[in-house]
Amino acid sequence: MAEPIIGILGGMGPLAGADFLARLTLATEAARDQDHLRAVLWSDPTVPDRTAAALAGGPSPLPAMLAGVRVLEQAGAGCLAIPCNTAHLWADGITAATRLPLIHIVDAAAAALAARGIGGGTIGLMGTAATLRLGLYQDRLAAHGYACLVPTEAEMAEAVSPAIARVKANDLAGAAAPLLGVATALAGRGAAAVVLGCTEIPLALRGPDAEASGLMLVDTIDALARAVLAWARPG
Amino acid sequence: MAEPIIGILGGMGPLAGADFLARLTLATEAARDQDHLRAVLWSDPTVPDRTAAALAGGPSPLPAMLAGVRVLEQAGAGCLAIPCNTAHLWADGITAATRLPLIHIVDAAAAALAARGIGGGTIGLMGTAATLRLGLYQDRLAAHGYACLVPTEAEMAEAVSPAIARVKANDLAGAAAPLLGVATALAGRGAAAVVLGCTEIPLALRGPDAEASGLMLVDTIDALARAVLAWARPG
Repeated sequence: MAEPIIGILGGMGPLAGADFLARLTLATEAARDQDHLRAVLWSDPTVPDRTAAALAGGPSPLPAMLAGVRVLEQAGAGCLAIPCNTAHLWADGITAATRLPLIHIVDAAAAALAARGIGGGTIGLMGTAATLRLGLYQDRLAAHGYACLVPTEAEMAEAVSPAIARVKANDLAGAAAPLLGVATALAGRGAAAVVLGCTEIPLALRGPDAEASGLMLVDTIDALARAVLAWARPG
Repeated sequence: MAEPIIGILGGMGPLAGADFLARLTLATEAARDQDHLRAVLWSDPTVPDRTAAALAGGPSPLPAMLAGVRVLEQAGAGCLAIPCNTAHLWADGITAATRLPLIHIVDAAAAALAARGIGGGTIGLMGTAATLRLGLYQDRLAAHGYACLVPTEAEMAEAVSPAIARVKANDLAGAAAPLLGVATALAGRGAAAVVLGCTEIPLALRGPDAEASGLMLVDTIDALARAVLAWARPG
């Protein structure tokens, strides 16, 4: 039996999609090319902006995302991974339109928290304004026993939102310091770990910065890669 | 007019394919997601080993590669990029079977040499045993005025081939030193620059190591990304 082909709905943003496939590869136990999973990545950065659609009445990204799902289905994908947190606000619309199982990024983040010994309690959450304001994580993580602490409006406006925009414009270096500042503030207010709930954030805020500061960060690109691997190769 | 969709025949190896899309993204002038190019990446690491096929009578990778090309055509790709040097030994078989233009990795390397001020003369070349022995680069670069200096049989057997295998098994750190040693030896023998003519090599041998040693290295993943960008957005 051939292993399932991993379907990746990417491009939101494009670097996060490419990095997701790299992380999936690096997380796979393999001694040679042929030990790795097959995957197909549809990278469409022209999908309308998710935050603008959710908060400001911008055009819906759903039709473009469903067109991408069709490409992945035709290519033979056996599941669907979306390396974009905000896009999961349309998860119901996507799962209603395909028979492919969606490996949900919030469930992946919960599994990553549990794997690091945090089974419940207060955790920090960073993400786009849409992800935070519409409660994507808060509701789904509450069911797992977590309470989410989010940045203040000022922290969002002055640090998190501009940093996410910088990553989308390829300025990774300029985005690291403001993101680290907010993560540190959330930890100071009682978060046992901070979930980087926008796939652009861990592109700028890498492990070494976090380790140096003693923070526990959950990288949702990595968490989704591990969840996909656990789905494709259980046990 | 929508811009063309970049078709990427990847998985050979899977990290090189993912990294190619990341490099293409980082090389693109963009202020937001929607400024980036659309792409579809078929990542099939189960394609039979190219070196074994070329040198040891192993099964041909061509049928699996052509199946991937069909997926990319169906997805609407407007060109074909293959982030695997050795796979280009089957370039004629691929271009005969599709109307998609192939952005050839050796031409991309020649353009990268020229862009760095090396218009001809002796250059070093590292790659798989198949790429070197079957003259993939030597013939095509000779037409551009370059003479290729390759590693000795001992350097291939003791350093280059094992290092490429390490990258495919995700051991990037263990592959860097032997690769740097061979690149340095080629420069010592008169190579003005060294072309890293296997996409696994630049995954281990990154810019900083090279700069510290004063070598000029041509990264063929990056060169191919820039050639694709020049094709998609000329001028």
